[in-house]
Amino acid sequence: MAAGLLVVLSGPSGVGKGTVCELLCHYRPSLQISVSLTTRPPRPGEVAGVNYDFTTPDRFKELISQDAFLEWAVVYGHYYGTLKETVDSCLARGRDVLLEIDVQGALQIRRRMPEAVLIFLAPPSMEALCERITGRATEGAEDIKRRLEAAQQEMAAYSHYDYLVVNDKVDKAAASINAIIEAEKCRISRGARPPGWGGEA
Amino acid sequence: MAAGLLVVLSGPSGVGKGTVCELLCHYRPSLQISVSLTTRPPRPGEVAGVNYDFTTPDRFKELISQDAFLEWAVVYGHYYGTLKETVDSCLARGRDVLLEIDVQGALQIRRRMPEAVLIFLAPPSMEALCERITGRATEGAEDIKRRLEAAQQEMAAYSHYDYLVVNDKVDKAAASINAIIEAEKCRISRGARPPGWGGEA
Repeated sequence: MAAGLLVVLSGPSGVGKGTVCELLCHYRPSLQISVSLTTRPPRPGEVAGVNYDFTTPDRFKELISQDAFLEWAVVYGHYYGTLKETVDSCLARGRDVLLEIDVQGALQIRRRMPEAVLIFLAPPSMEALCERITGRATEGAEDIKRRLEAAQQEMAAYSHYDYLVVNDKVDKAAASINAIIEAEKCRISRGARPPGWGGEA
Repeated sequence: MAAGLLVVLSGPSGVGKGTVCELLCHYRPSLQISVSLTTRPPRPGEVAGVNYDFTTPDRFKELISQDAFLEWAVVYGHYYGTLKETVDSCLARGRDVLLEIDVQGALQIRRRMPEAVLIFLAPPSMEALCERITGRATEGAEDIKRRLEAAQQEMAAYSHYDYLVVNDKVDKAAASINAIIEAEKCRISRGARPPGWGGEA
């Protein structure tokens, strides 16, 4: 059985990764979404094991010291990470796995698993991203300034990715990501072979 | 304006390139099919400038000596080729161009234009390809034998391509090729950039 594909969907905070990811799962139900582990408290309506798994900072640090993470990052004071074991067991069973993670995490994956497919979700314009961040900020002018600066840095990381998809319309963005996954599965460098072809010439 | 993408659809004789190509054009009307030049006589129903452009062997050889071809090949005694000028002018205008050509031609493109996207259309099984070739042959047992041997050699070339698509169902194959084109247009190595992003960090 061919191993599954590891797909990383990433991009600046506020670009709409979650919404695109949700629609993508409708287009491609076989895709397994990896549930991240976090130390931030659950938001209203969030269910453990669905959106995130929740843990304490102490336990998270213990897992870091055990090298248990494929990637981890600190975002606005909270830890977020993806456990190696969860991802590896899915891929070994031939399932394609999607990680919806921040830019720091994606760059760690780039180094640790060069065969992963890295997709950068970009806003339709910098203005649109700024509006989105401004609308989302909860802690006043300082918070907004900090988030806008972070967004600039996150945007600059796009060149380390394989693909760029513009989140202009959610359905178009999800369809493009679906096409990228479909195409990657046809790549000969990933082991695509003619059925029943043993190489006899 | 970004230059267009050169897509090469190729595979063994009898695999069904023409049928897949036709459906693909319905899925992706912006795709420009490149019309090959050939010295073989038109088949019933073929229209010059639509299926092929037709010429004499002398004129074809003259064009070869002028290095006018992006690729050319001799298939069962007839010349087939793609003129550089036709393809280059389309790509420069930002149009994506599809070449539906044989394996010899595709390997020439690999060498001359490494940035081209090479897609190998494979039969669902070797048996299916043999049946197709046997049904198509018009010149008896010797002709069939020659064509089956050629098919084996053509199959062996798949490893030089970027993508492999199995022509199990025509609509599925055309959809996969459409996804490959969509994905390639999102590749950062091909120049995909965040809109309005100047790189300021």
